[in-house]
Amino acid sequence: MVNSAIILAAGLGSRIQKHAGQKPKGFLMLAEKPIIEHSIANLLEMGFEKIYLGTGYRAEEYEKLALRYPQLVCIPNPEYAQTGSLWTLYQFKEHIHEDFLLLESDLIYEKAALKVLKDMDKPDVILASKFTSSGDEVFIETDENQLLLNMSKSRDSLNEIYGELVGITKLSFQSFQKICSEIEGDPRYWKCRDYEDGIIKVSKDVKVYVHKHDIVWCEVDDEHHWTRANQYIYPLIQSRQKAKPPVHRNILLNPGPATTSDSVKYAQIVPDICPREGEFGEIMTFISEELTKMAGSPDTCTTVLFGGSGTAAVESILSSCIDTDPVIIINNGAYGKRMCQMAEAYRLEYIEYKSEEAVPLDLQKLEDTIRNLKRKPSHLAIVHNETTTGMLNDIEAVGRLCAKYKMEMIVDAMSSFAAIPINMEQMNISYLAASSNKNLQGMAGVSFVIANLTPLQKTKNIPPRNLYLQLYDQFDHFKRTKQMRFTPPVQTLYALKQAILETKWEGIEQRYERYAKSWETLVNGLTRLGLKYLVPESAHSKIITSVAEPENEHYDFEEMHEFFYKRGFTIYPGKLDDRKTFRIANIGDITSKDMEEFIVHLEQYLKDLERR
Amino acid sequence: MVNSAIILAAGLGSRIQKHAGQKPKGFLMLAEKPIIEHSIANLLEMGFEKIYLGTGYRAEEYEKLALRYPQLVCIPNPEYAQTGSLWTLYQFKEHIHEDFLLLESDLIYEKAALKVLKDMDKPDVILASKFTSSGDEVFIETDENQLLLNMSKSRDSLNEIYGELVGITKLSFQSFQKICSEIEGDPRYWKCRDYEDGIIKVSKDVKVYVHKHDIVWCEVDDEHHWTRANQYIYPLIQSRQKAKPPVHRNILLNPGPATTSDSVKYAQIVPDICPREGEFGEIMTFISEELTKMAGSPDTCTTVLFGGSGTAAVESILSSCIDTDPVIIINNGAYGKRMCQMAEAYRLEYIEYKSEEAVPLDLQKLEDTIRNLKRKPSHLAIVHNETTTGMLNDIEAVGRLCAKYKMEMIVDAMSSFAAIPINMEQMNISYLAASSNKNLQGMAGVSFVIANLTPLQKTKNIPPRNLYLQLYDQFDHFKRTKQMRFTPPVQTLYALKQAILETKWEGIEQRYERYAKSWETLVNGLTRLGLKYLVPESAHSKIITSVAEPENEHYDFEEMHEFFYKRGFTIYPGKLDDRKTFRIANIGDITSKDMEEFIVHLEQYLKDLERR
Repeated sequence: MVNSAIILAAGLGSRIQKHAGQKPKGFLMLAEKPIIEHSIANLLEMGFEKIYLGTGYRAEEYEKLALRYPQLVCIPNPEYAQTGSLWTLYQFKEHIHEDFLLLESDLIYEKAALKVLKDMDKPDVILASKFTSSGDEVFIETDENQLLLNMSKSRDSLNEIYGELVGITKLSFQSFQKICSEIEGDPRYWKCRDYEDGIIKVSKDVKVYVHKHDIVWCEVDDEHHWTRANQYIYPLIQSRQKAKPPVHRNILLNPGPATTSDSVKYAQIVPDICPREGEFGEIMTFISEELTKMAGSPDTCTTVLFGGSGTAAVESILSSCIDTDPVIIINNGAYGKRMCQMAEAYRLEYIEYKSEEAVPLDLQKLEDTIRNLKRKPSHLAIVHNETTTGMLNDIEAVGRLCAKYKMEMIVDAMSSFAAIPINMEQMNISYLAASSNKNLQGMAGVSFVIANLTPLQKTKNIPPRNLYLQLYDQFDHFKRTKQMRFTPPVQTLYALKQAILETKWEGIEQRYERYAKSWETLVNGLTRLGLKYLVPESAHSKIITSVAEPENEHYDFEEMHEFFYKRGFTIYPGKLDDRKTFRIANIGDITSKDMEEFIVHLEQYLKDLERR
Repeated sequence: MVNSAIILAAGLGSRIQKHAGQKPKGFLMLAEKPIIEHSIANLLEMGFEKIYLGTGYRAEEYEKLALRYPQLVCIPNPEYAQTGSLWTLYQFKEHIHEDFLLLESDLIYEKAALKVLKDMDKPDVILASKFTSSGDEVFIETDENQLLLNMSKSRDSLNEIYGELVGITKLSFQSFQKICSEIEGDPRYWKCRDYEDGIIKVSKDVKVYVHKHDIVWCEVDDEHHWTRANQYIYPLIQSRQKAKPPVHRNILLNPGPATTSDSVKYAQIVPDICPREGEFGEIMTFISEELTKMAGSPDTCTTVLFGGSGTAAVESILSSCIDTDPVIIINNGAYGKRMCQMAEAYRLEYIEYKSEEAVPLDLQKLEDTIRNLKRKPSHLAIVHNETTTGMLNDIEAVGRLCAKYKMEMIVDAMSSFAAIPINMEQMNISYLAASSNKNLQGMAGVSFVIANLTPLQKTKNIPPRNLYLQLYDQFDHFKRTKQMRFTPPVQTLYALKQAILETKWEGIEQRYERYAKSWETLVNGLTRLGLKYLVPESAHSKIITSVAEPENEHYDFEEMHEFFYKRGFTIYPGKLDDRKTFRIANIGDITSKDMEEFIVHLEQYLKDLERR
């Protein structure tokens, strides 16, 4: 069991110095405590008994710190200004006689990072993470057994990249000795190298295992890193560490509300606050801006939040943004139909463009229809990913039509947003509606409209058709006061903030990759078991799948539902008028492993069904 | 420190026997465990080392149980059928030689009940609670020092009643010996008495202290008790015990969202669930029915839930229930005015009846106005407690006018519901709107309409004016499916369920008493400090108070707000057009003690202001 740690803390940190008040980087103040003390607290909590600091630049600051912690020992590298971190490590040659954890001083990380290395029985382990795209990353190349081959800041100099270096490594005393011998063999060469170079070198003789783990972390090299650390990495770490005890995990295969992380669940536990407070206004501003950034630029777009379900946001757009000219509504599923119902209720002039549910839109036919309309529509409304079938409508192509025929495009992106990349400008979207509880993996209760500011501003003078869902008023009030007009769902918004942090951490493209992997597992399984899904892959959202019911007289959806429900899986009924289907979504905090398990149960269910 | 307990478990429990499967009452199964085992688990967890059972009816069941718990000792009362619980207690004369806790076997209670008695240094203590209105209560009379004078099931036979007997008592060995001597002095008399009689007797010589504590508990004597135990006492105990760690407490003196209990906060932490599941339908059904019962009968009324703020529920009524005839809207504050805005947006025929904000409605003038209208209104809309001022409109009197002139009354009860008692039938209310986050002390995000079924059914054929807030459709869909039409705010509904349990436990009248006490503390304080509040007490809701700003040139609301905010209190700005005011609400999980503290700070603030 490793109980010692060396923190390399000799560097100057020139790019971030002004925030550290001319002290070393480790003294950057995070939540009223230097980041080095966060790291020390983590180590002590995880049972480390000896913490060595490899100091250099303003070593006296660390010496002062050591007075407060009996576990700290400072070993200076007098040549820190002219040498690399490997030379700082080499200074420990006479001081360390045991295995140890090697850390960088500018790391902000989850405690779990220490635990995972401590618990592994391999003696030399590099901790890796998913790609953070933070800038300044070190990439790791391994062989097929996850043994270290190489590390580099340049992707091009590596072959297969396995992960990204976190900066926490377990080194055996033996490996440390080997590194020291190498250095002594050619000190001039090694003096200016990084500690990573020493590890790469030793990995030629010793098996250095690279372990990839879901750890939230960052290092702080520059201004940008520091903002990122404060605004989202540290809050994310805090929230993940606080999310205890674990909550019983259900696998929701319905199309949202989706399975959420425990940290999103626990984000609802906050001290009571009046939502008219500036402090809460900041939370909503953060949410609004980050949602905007997921699909467009805050310079041209804005996000207007509502308390209510996704339908409320769609209704807000339709009731608020259309004046007296007609709107053409594309209906190839239940959610297109719902928009027609709204238009009906508000007595809008509207043209329903019906298209078959499981067949991709015929764009030529749509264009012909538009061209032949007597009254030119001012707006076109379309569902992006039709939850009824999983059909992914090609909104980019439809957006081009809108541009050509000067229509504002309204997109119901309920089941696509935050998974399928969307670009308001590129796709020519004027208004987009989505909600907190689908691919964002938050709690239900908040919906929002992302609007292009130019058309939104023009809706100001349209006579209001309602109060609660009036889009311009909601926008304008928030802009002026940082408040919603009517009491917002406070705790759901805190959960949404957390869900946004987690979405940013995962990355929308990576999230969609994860979803797509679950989807492939699903459809491969379905195909193997002889079940048919409706929409062809080329037009499939890979988010929700409508599956034809098994042709067996004993089949009963409710019964199948109960079978899965008992096993912790929630499946969903179909919503097609003419075909008997059930639906399986693959969104939320689940992975392809969960989907594999689902397929195993499905196979069992179908076998039992056959046997009757 | 008391480490022994005697549980009196000899009784027959004839009124509840069928649920106990002919076993003694202690074997009633609660959450798959006999209630006696819940009690034993509580005792063991609280460090009790010896648990004596006074058995009788089917003593062998307890003997079997004792085989599984080395800490259990059964002492039978062979004459249990002909004797009282005091005689069962007397059987321990030769067995007990220490102080002990005395419990009844049919109690379901919070662990905190044991802790509070264990921690008290007084040797003889009876645990009392607030009045539970559960039926079959034993009331306690004490002197001014909370020393026991008498106990009885009949309120009339007592003078000042201090509290209700829980059935958990700490007795010193000395007092027990005294009780035994009394019994031995006249065994024929004492044989048929209850253990309470023994304690009353000993209290003539020994100081028996009665300690009232906020403990959730019930006993199970009959069918009604048992339903209550399962549906709400046990869930309430569970949720209160799980609500850990404590959340930082803020005192919100804004008119909602209000300060909530930790158990309401933690009720949001649930496994993910698809809100279309039957399991969730049951939660919503419970909520809907319990809300109905707070103001009317489920036979004539129903509660329709929405995801959204309170305004959404008011808008739902106004947009869904009025056909072509006019509605008269009483406007004596911002929320009356808001209803006019809604009527405007939906182009309803409406008559605005304006009345001064801080002066009670002139009912004669209102009637004259109604009588002189050319077109007879089908509806009248009124705010019950106008949050702008704290004015409590006399809806019962207005309801009589509505009956006389055949109008359906619509009541915005946002700031009164669940505190000020409301009776749909008696007050002639057709539709009432309220929300989860005010006096219900739940989280924001759910609003609801309580509707009288007769008028509601008639709205079926009114052409819809919107989709999201269409009341009849929302009602009808829920009735048929136990689902909301659109994704509900799942976690907020779990919190609302918890808030309802807690409201039931406190009782609406008792809640209003607590609020009124805080209000009196507030207005007494204001008066003492020379501040004036607007609405006279006779028309005051005692829920929110509009206070004239101090006449001091240095006064600035924002600054005063910051002063309090730093100290954990949130105050609220005024909303009157013509008068400068600020507002203080006294709702939520706060007491008059918090209000006293507020007044202390206010005094400090005003003194500082004077000194400038």
